[in-house]
Amino acid sequence: MIRVNVTYVICLLSDGIVGIVMIQIIGLEGLPIIREGDDLAELICIGAEGQGVHIEDGDVLVITHVVVSRAEGNVVDLDSVEPSEFAKSLGERLSKDPALVEVVLRQSKSIVRMGDGNIICETMHGFVCANAGVDRSNVPGERNVVLLPVDPDVSARRIRMKIRELTGKDVAVIISDTHGRPLRDGQINVAIGVAGIDPVRNRMGEKDLFGYVLRVKRIAVADELASAAELVIGQADEGIPVAIIRGYAYPRSEEARATKLIRPREKDLFI
Amino acid sequence: MIRVNVTYVICLLSDGIVGIVMIQIIGLEGLPIIREGDDLAELICIGAEGQGVHIEDGDVLVITHVVVSRAEGNVVDLDSVEPSEFAKSLGERLSKDPALVEVVLRQSKSIVRMGDGNIICETMHGFVCANAGVDRSNVPGERNVVLLPVDPDVSARRIRMKIRELTGKDVAVIISDTHGRPLRDGQINVAIGVAGIDPVRNRMGEKDLFGYVLRVKRIAVADELASAAELVIGQADEGIPVAIIRGYAYPRSEEARATKLIRPREKDLFI
Repeated sequence: MIRVNVTYVICLLSDGIVGIVMIQIIGLEGLPIIREGDDLAELICIGAEGQGVHIEDGDVLVITHVVVSRAEGNVVDLDSVEPSEFAKSLGERLSKDPALVEVVLRQSKSIVRMGDGNIICETMHGFVCANAGVDRSNVPGERNVVLLPVDPDVSARRIRMKIRELTGKDVAVIISDTHGRPLRDGQINVAIGVAGIDPVRNRMGEKDLFGYVLRVKRIAVADELASAAELVIGQADEGIPVAIIRGYAYPRSEEARATKLIRPREKDLFI
Repeated sequence: MIRVNVTYVICLLSDGIVGIVMIQIIGLEGLPIIREGDDLAELICIGAEGQGVHIEDGDVLVITHVVVSRAEGNVVDLDSVEPSEFAKSLGERLSKDPALVEVVLRQSKSIVRMGDGNIICETMHGFVCANAGVDRSNVPGERNVVLLPVDPDVSARRIRMKIRELTGKDVAVIISDTHGRPLRDGQINVAIGVAGIDPVRNRMGEKDLFGYVLRVKRIAVADELASAAELVIGQADEGIPVAIIRGYAYPRSEEARATKLIRPREKDLFI
């Protein structure tokens, strides 16, 4: 991405001539290395202030799950793990660390497929992804791995509430992870936890440009927001674990959960 | 999305104190209804100028396939279609217009699944999606449907070249469609044609925040850009068929095609 040195971004608003529909994706930099027990919401608010980006009502905060799990202490030292016989045999077959395999198995409700050095799992939450989301990157310590948050929706809710408490602002929070997907190559960022937003926008019944009523249009906006955020969130050494998306009127919901995005295999027409 | 009346957006740049990583997604409004033979690239340039958004080097233009196909005359009047016996029997079984089923079959290389009123197809290009991408919405005329462009990469290339010719600017072009996907509910916008951009960013070998070498990180950035654009592109009556994404340093490529994003079923571990 392009890094610009910006002292001020001033928008002169008036009842002007031209209407521009614009959404901004702002990368939050300069957060400290997140450790167990850190108050992530507070650090995000401090970081945003320090960067001159004041959190506003209607902002969508996309947070990479790794920092959420690190703050929640959801990190495992592989040296402390005793792999089962099954994990050992799998590890050998897949050329994978047996302790890592053991952690992946413990995080899985079921195994979808194995092969090619990968274990595609159904996580405890129901997400289908490689290695049950167990991640080796962006974790301090040679032998540490980070797990998915125990309940990413609860984590998102907690962060959202704390941000409201600290700033008085009503935001949506999305916790994201980068997943591979069936049939298409490459990984994309998706939502694994949400708060304050309905992850699916239902456009059924709305009319198109020519008055034709849209038959089926259920847009997974939380996934699209997570993907948009990935464009600035550092996957490698960039150190941007949080993006603020500003200017998108998301469907509000106090109850919706990211697990709404999971389609049960038995209902799936694609596979 | 939030519509703001903006006369000017002034960015005061200096070698300032704070560095902000920011990407903008700008919706292009006010394009005329696109008809067969229209020069879409020219209309986009005129529209951008009229809106005060000057096309810049490094912009990513995401264009919804419907306007590309309309400009290319890739629209079919269902009344002109003679459905086969198979299309008739399928239509009855799926409660679908047999002429529409006939068009869908003609656009398909193979059928993946049928049921629940849907036909999941592998298109001639190799994309797996509902109804082979044949779309009833945002097409003028009660009985008209729009097909996917014959070769969306070629369409993207043509538009990119024309924009360069008209403005002297080097942009990336992504042609998008909204697809359902396996295992996750809701549709997202994905790339079906690209020009000037490698749809996959390969981060393998890059190091994370703690010096750990990323093992597998192939990010489908073209899909993420398409999803980001959908946040402003009008799916219903909003009339925004084009988004300009500004500030994202995409991987450049003169050769890459969107078909690179297709993972052959036999190589798929997820299904």
